[in-house]
Amino acid sequence: MASDPRPALFLDNISVGDTVTTDEYVVTKQEIIEFATRYDPQVFHTDEEGAVDTFFGGLAASGWHTAAMTMRLLVTSGFAFSGGVVGAGGDISWPSATRAGDVLHVESTVAEITPSRSRPDRGTVTLRSETKTADGEIRQVLVARLVAFRKPA
Amino acid sequence: MASDPRPALFLDNISVGDTVTTDEYVVTKQEIIEFATRYDPQVFHTDEEGAVDTFFGGLAASGWHTAAMTMRLLVTSGFAFSGGVVGAGGDISWPSATRAGDVLHVESTVAEITPSRSRPDRGTVTLRSETKTADGEIRQVLVARLVAFRKPA
Repeated sequence: MASDPRPALFLDNISVGDTVTTDEYVVTKQEIIEFATRYDPQVFHTDEEGAVDTFFGGLAASGWHTAAMTMRLLVTSGFAFSGGVVGAGGDISWPSATRAGDVLHVESTVAEITPSRSRPDRGTVTLRSETKTADGEIRQVLVARLVAFRKPA
Repeated sequence: MASDPRPALFLDNISVGDTVTTDEYVVTKQEIIEFATRYDPQVFHTDEEGAVDTFFGGLAASGWHTAAMTMRLLVTSGFAFSGGVVGAGGDISWPSATRAGDVLHVESTVAEITPSRSRPDRGTVTLRSETKTADGEIRQVLVARLVAFRKPA
């Protein structure tokens, strides 16, 4: 975005092993319930009392809410890829559930860079992003395939 | 949930090849912008005019928004797994971008069932879910690993 102070990253300026740690995101009970009521209406995500006797043993954020909060952190304080953070897909896992009170941050590492064979102006960056609490508990691991562009000649 | 009219599905009642088609979800411009403003604030997701000159060529929903809408459909009109739709993770891809005006539904198929070796009361169901428009364009493919429980003896 025009107001972004981070220099735009082109494919040519990215190396395997590059890493970034994002800002933090404070997870609230209200937001967990609000997100889940709309997109993942299951008792363990929407009802603190009802959640006690479920798989999660208490209120837990939807995994897709964890993914959404992670994306917010990546977009606002992760790698500032030129052209934006555009994902073609990836592999996601939730080793533990996000809870109200968690203060999340994301640690991202460039795992692989694959130039496009058909389109010389771009390539795929494989980015491994771990979403962690302040105590270092891992809430999500996302290995995403992103589109990155070369600097125009 | 208590008010859910669908019979609860246990691990014992699920077979590879079982399939379900969900209800529909109408995607609006307002919701695309609202979701992205909060969780994926990039110009191609938040600004109809600004989106024209980007990778997407126009306003497109965040992939995580497509995932969230898909989850809503799966939870409310997909397989009614006993204990809920609880994902450990999965592989996600977005072959095309979701646009305002899309009417989405999800077609889910049980791809694999793996009984747990350590916990005899449960297993993993691998569910392939395609999120499609009314014209059959595929917006998302999610191959998710879900926890499913056996019927208590």
